[in-house]
Amino acid sequence: MASLTNCEEQQEPFILSNSWPKTQESDKKWKGFGGFVLVHAGAGYHSESKAKEYKHVCKRACQRAVEQLKSGALAVEAVAAALVELEDSPFTNAGMGSNLNLSGEIECDASIMDGKSLHYGAVGAISGIKNPILVANRLLTEAQKGKLSAGRIPPCFLVGQGAQDWAVGHGIPPCPSEKLTTKYSLSAYKRNKRKMELAENMDMGHNQAKRRRLSSENENGSGCLDTVGAIVVDLEGNVAAAVSSGGLAMKHPGRVGQAAHYGCGCWAENASDMISYSTAVSTSGCGEHLIRTMLARECSSAMQSEDAHQALLEAMQNKFISSPFLGSEGRVLGGVIVLRCCRCVEAQPSPNIQGLLVEFLWSHTTESMCVGYMSAQDSKAKTHISRLPPGTVPGQSLAIEGGVCRLMSSSD
Amino acid sequence: MASLTNCEEQQEPFILSNSWPKTQESDKKWKGFGGFVLVHAGAGYHSESKAKEYKHVCKRACQRAVEQLKSGALAVEAVAAALVELEDSPFTNAGMGSNLNLSGEIECDASIMDGKSLHYGAVGAISGIKNPILVANRLLTEAQKGKLSAGRIPPCFLVGQGAQDWAVGHGIPPCPSEKLTTKYSLSAYKRNKRKMELAENMDMGHNQAKRRRLSSENENGSGCLDTVGAIVVDLEGNVAAAVSSGGLAMKHPGRVGQAAHYGCGCWAENASDMISYSTAVSTSGCGEHLIRTMLARECSSAMQSEDAHQALLEAMQNKFISSPFLGSEGRVLGGVIVLRCCRCVEAQPSPNIQGLLVEFLWSHTTESMCVGYMSAQDSKAKTHISRLPPGTVPGQSLAIEGGVCRLMSSSD
Repeated sequence: MASLTNCEEQQEPFILSNSWPKTQESDKKWKGFGGFVLVHAGAGYHSESKAKEYKHVCKRACQRAVEQLKSGALAVEAVAAALVELEDSPFTNAGMGSNLNLSGEIECDASIMDGKSLHYGAVGAISGIKNPILVANRLLTEAQKGKLSAGRIPPCFLVGQGAQDWAVGHGIPPCPSEKLTTKYSLSAYKRNKRKMELAENMDMGHNQAKRRRLSSENENGSGCLDTVGAIVVDLEGNVAAAVSSGGLAMKHPGRVGQAAHYGCGCWAENASDMISYSTAVSTSGCGEHLIRTMLARECSSAMQSEDAHQALLEAMQNKFISSPFLGSEGRVLGGVIVLRCCRCVEAQPSPNIQGLLVEFLWSHTTESMCVGYMSAQDSKAKTHISRLPPGTVPGQSLAIEGGVCRLMSSSD
Repeated sequence: MASLTNCEEQQEPFILSNSWPKTQESDKKWKGFGGFVLVHAGAGYHSESKAKEYKHVCKRACQRAVEQLKSGALAVEAVAAALVELEDSPFTNAGMGSNLNLSGEIECDASIMDGKSLHYGAVGAISGIKNPILVANRLLTEAQKGKLSAGRIPPCFLVGQGAQDWAVGHGIPPCPSEKLTTKYSLSAYKRNKRKMELAENMDMGHNQAKRRRLSSENENGSGCLDTVGAIVVDLEGNVAAAVSSGGLAMKHPGRVGQAAHYGCGCWAENASDMISYSTAVSTSGCGEHLIRTMLARECSSAMQSEDAHQALLEAMQNKFISSPFLGSEGRVLGGVIVLRCCRCVEAQPSPNIQGLLVEFLWSHTTESMCVGYMSAQDSKAKTHISRLPPGTVPGQSLAIEGGVCRLMSSSD
């Protein structure tokens, strides 16, 4: 049996207060089908004209995850299902419709982490695969089976042609690049290429250093950096996180961003003897900034503090915007979705039913971030395009919002 | 002016005690040419018959770094020079003589981190380049120059063919794979291939799970996992770390190990308002274990504790051997070299001369680890093959040793 009170979304400023003390009965096995999912269609800039599309894909991704949860899937399976939907949308920068690189090719990064087993799988700069997340997920499940023949350790991270070959060898069909390219991604590529050539010709007379500084003003500020991702908690309290990206537009072939980087793109860790809360995080934005700050893991660690909202605010401010690892960067562009949960004892209708308190948040320094969330008891997902407060500067300011959700599960 | 007392190496058990209180005069600029380097030729198994070769390459790598330091190079330049020497040896699993992958090809990983700028560069699964570390280092220096044309953010991590193309485009010459393959690496490949085929044929009748468990007994235990690396501190107190690897023998093409993974292969962080000690770490061993435990960064964080020896012992025990992230792994194989340093005031011959106390350690769970170290005032490097105590089990026990070194530098 699984029931759920409605999720409460609150606007800033708000405090996520955990009014339910944690239970000591951690030896009981709590079960049930259901859970909660939070997805993002990327931190970057979401035009009003396409707002409907972005919200729609978030909604569908939530529904896919919830369908899985309702049929008894674990968090890690549900999060992969949400990612497939996000990748399949031509409007997101992941899978179909990904940004093209400098050579006009699509190379994708994706990773997934299971908070229960703490296993992890990632692919970087992979081409010719419709759903990179399914390759990352397959790496995760294969690694859980143990060693390969002759005692070889199974890989957790594959890149490039080798990653594609491995995927095909494991039954994931190849997909011609043309099918992944959209009219929109192709025209954006042509526009970017012209812009680059213009910038380079304009700066011909200047020296290298000057040229770089001059041309750094345009385009990058808060362009389309739409890495997508999702985080899920199931009714057993298992968490999972995933992320997928086409990477920066006009990136160098072979460039790998945070979406394939352990600790940087996503993080999921079940509660244990050592940590009180289960946490899951998925990031978006400028890969190099997110790698060098290890933002996913930093946010996950921060979530062990008492006040989740304050902890994320401080993490985004001190470990990202003002991070010593990004000392020379003017604008620090990124976003995160975060959830944490713990078992609770208060207000139980029966000793065999236990509550799971889920606190969820999103925060970004980019102009906007599109999110969606849903519990297994909701009939449809809620979606939202979060924007920086008017007059604030992307890369230097942040927005933070979130909500609380209570899930109920029954014991064996 | 730079003078140095001899390095004292101590055998376990020993305590690294910092008898010099830290100075408060951090606004003064301390200068001088010189410093200290610690290198490793890998954690794995070093046969007695090749001990001389391993020690010799460590010695040469130390000398190369010290030559750089004496000529006024910063730590990051010196550490790259040490790595080139380690890569060029046919006896190490990096650059020339790297392990061959499943297809009989060489694909290398390498990364470098500068504790001063906190910049980082990495390449993964790169082929046809004699010194992968030079590509990683070039990525680091290019990123420090700021944005590319049209505001594009320079990459910090490149893989595969794209990485090779970028290197060649930046003046690093390609090198035919045949020149990187040695008689030894080729015969090891043939031997491994036979072993794999045998193991697979033998297990033909068993189911997949059984086959894997059966064949996991041989070979992997503490095979040749010789990722190489180095850590350096210069007389200004800047630290740097680097690592380079041919990866696991018979790995799947496209597999990337810890040597290309931020926070896992190497870490370097100068002291700042937030941290008391400058720290540098370089790891070696089974890439998947080192990735999932983020061992380089964990050891660096641990080094901020009072007692360096105890801190590393606990980090290796709790964050590696007993890490919850490696719960299902029977044997956890790896090694680290670590240094930390701080400025000191005691026993100064003059107020214009300041001491730099360097504490250095190595620790490993593999059968052996070959290290070398040298200060700019030493006439030659000391080398050592550290071995697990007799009767202990690789992957479940550890060895830990180290020493202390005092460097002197003069102020402006």
